[in-house]
Amino acid sequence: MREVAILGIGQVPVGEHWGKRLVELAGDAVFAALEDAGVKRVEALYVGNMMAGQLDKQTHLGALIADWVGFRGIEAMAVEAACGSGALALRTAMIAVGSGMVSSALAVGVEKMTDTSPRETTSALATAASADWEGIHGVTFVGLNALIMRRYMYENGWKHEDFAQFSINAHANGAKNPNARFQAPITEGIYKKAAMIADPINLMDASPIGDGAAAVIVVPADLVKGQKEKPLIKIAGSAVATDSLAVHDRHDPLWLAASEKSAQEAYRQAGVGPDGIDFFEIHDAFSIMSALSLEACGFAERGQAPRLALDGEIMPGGKIPLTTMGGLKARGHPVGATGMYQVVESVLQLRGEAGPAQIEGARVGMTQNIGGSGATVITHILKAE
Amino acid sequence: MREVAILGIGQVPVGEHWGKRLVELAGDAVFAALEDAGVKRVEALYVGNMMAGQLDKQTHLGALIADWVGFRGIEAMAVEAACGSGALALRTAMIAVGSGMVSSALAVGVEKMTDTSPRETTSALATAASADWEGIHGVTFVGLNALIMRRYMYENGWKHEDFAQFSINAHANGAKNPNARFQAPITEGIYKKAAMIADPINLMDASPIGDGAAAVIVVPADLVKGQKEKPLIKIAGSAVATDSLAVHDRHDPLWLAASEKSAQEAYRQAGVGPDGIDFFEIHDAFSIMSALSLEACGFAERGQAPRLALDGEIMPGGKIPLTTMGGLKARGHPVGATGMYQVVESVLQLRGEAGPAQIEGARVGMTQNIGGSGATVITHILKAE
Repeated sequence: MREVAILGIGQVPVGEHWGKRLVELAGDAVFAALEDAGVKRVEALYVGNMMAGQLDKQTHLGALIADWVGFRGIEAMAVEAACGSGALALRTAMIAVGSGMVSSALAVGVEKMTDTSPRETTSALATAASADWEGIHGVTFVGLNALIMRRYMYENGWKHEDFAQFSINAHANGAKNPNARFQAPITEGIYKKAAMIADPINLMDASPIGDGAAAVIVVPADLVKGQKEKPLIKIAGSAVATDSLAVHDRHDPLWLAASEKSAQEAYRQAGVGPDGIDFFEIHDAFSIMSALSLEACGFAERGQAPRLALDGEIMPGGKIPLTTMGGLKARGHPVGATGMYQVVESVLQLRGEAGPAQIEGARVGMTQNIGGSGATVITHILKAE
Repeated sequence: MREVAILGIGQVPVGEHWGKRLVELAGDAVFAALEDAGVKRVEALYVGNMMAGQLDKQTHLGALIADWVGFRGIEAMAVEAACGSGALALRTAMIAVGSGMVSSALAVGVEKMTDTSPRETTSALATAASADWEGIHGVTFVGLNALIMRRYMYENGWKHEDFAQFSINAHANGAKNPNARFQAPITEGIYKKAAMIADPINLMDASPIGDGAAAVIVVPADLVKGQKEKPLIKIAGSAVATDSLAVHDRHDPLWLAASEKSAQEAYRQAGVGPDGIDFFEIHDAFSIMSALSLEACGFAERGQAPRLALDGEIMPGGKIPLTTMGGLKARGHPVGATGMYQVVESVLQLRGEAGPAQIEGARVGMTQNIGGSGATVITHILKAE
């Protein structure tokens, strides 16, 4: 497969976009990406989305968005793996371009979650868990993550406040991102006093839903080499791995096997290890997910990720800066768009265009997008050249 | 991209499988395909499905089915373009193998539609149309197709009974297929007297929903060349094209532009034209769709497809045999699985394993899977070598 580069990026602010339909949000991100890339047309469009059928009464987003953005006729389709749908759109676009089948492709992630009642949205989200073993009992994702977090704290001797830095770092970074859902920093006091949702997960451990869309344009790397003033951003690693949907069915509920497997494969492709990663857009849907992902990806020993956070190593300037533009916690988690926001933000970092959120000297960035409670994990490693 | 071949096929009978969950149906088709191929494992799994989120309260089918069939950990995802989802799963698998990224992949189409009320299922189906311009008015797909058929009859001077042969041929062929939903032939009298659904579409013009699953295993063609006693089935052409979701928004509501575009591209890849196709698994969701597809794909002049049917040219032994195992009309239309059934049936024909439904001397088969009322069209051309 030929090497693939990201030529353009676009995003809309994550928020409550009650005045825009899903297709308009997607379109705005696409138009921004086209302008950023300086291209007028692409040959294929891949859409990452999880819930439009349930919440917008609209499936068939590939053709719909292709037509809306003025590309009626081109190949288009939607891809889905729950909250991992966004990164899958990039991967599908990358393979389409890498295979030689097309010479340019758009990947867009989009989700509209705030026009429906919390009950409807929560029920739709719960379809990412096992309907037979989890959904049927009425358990939500915050409930599942609470069970995992409680066990993790018990096994490893951590207290709830030991997770505070994941949230504090995310909100500090979100404050530097004009597209973030929340743009105010929080303190340890705010973290500790936040309302409990599902013990031990409180409001500051959980990422907010939102409406959002983000898009990238991918092309063969050799087509653009040396053509742009901006650095060439290559997709150096890309991998997907899966696990059981139901948490109880895993060999070890405290180990994200799919996160480890997809990260290892992405490292192998990119020829780097955890030490070679300058920043990590981690899937911090809940604080506990950040901890488990850091361990599965080799940044911390098993059970020891909170130590990394307590030592300040996840902040800008630390050993492995996380969620540099706010992450799911502060930028927001518009489910099917999230993986694409991670990629767009990584490109901004690698181009040196992240503004006050800039990680100095960032050359290699990693994104990891997780579906469900770890059943589908997509890792990408991007390199600036 | 390297050439790709279909090594194994599997299917379950289309019907009302109230005793099996969606994942079990998919699994049964996958197990059959693995046995048929004589392989124990694949590297990736692509699922075509439209409505599991809405009807089964279950998204995230990639990881779910991969785990169920014993392949926990492998790359897996779902793809969607309404009723075209099945063929997209094959296309995605083909590109994954063709690109060299993986050396074997499973594509499975699955849908479960009979455990929910007709109202729920019909509403879910309607999400494939434009929610903003069509769904919001309560129009269903049979309603949209009725508008198209009425206009087509008016423009071209055809009477309702002139479409009878599409249904009669499908049911005659379905009677030879043990996996078909309906296995009894019908007469012209039955066609004429069938209950009206949405004038001029009656019960015999409309395909039935159903539960079903079908699967194929794809591998690099050169890996299996000369290794099997069965003919090598190559994917010689594969193309996707799109159009507006809303029918009113097309340049011409009586011309399936996406059908034409995807067929032309598939012909180009395969190096054949309509004359070189031995049989055509057409997307006969409604009689009118068969007529429009035949014209868009170059088998009939504009407005003249019913002539082909009246002359018996769509039956076995005719110029272009259609729906050789019953098509959507008699085999049934389990939406996200339909495109995969078309492919499985084509492989049976090309292997000479279609039993009483066998088309003599079939070497080149075409399948066309349509999403919505023509907004996404996926064409495949398969060749036996």
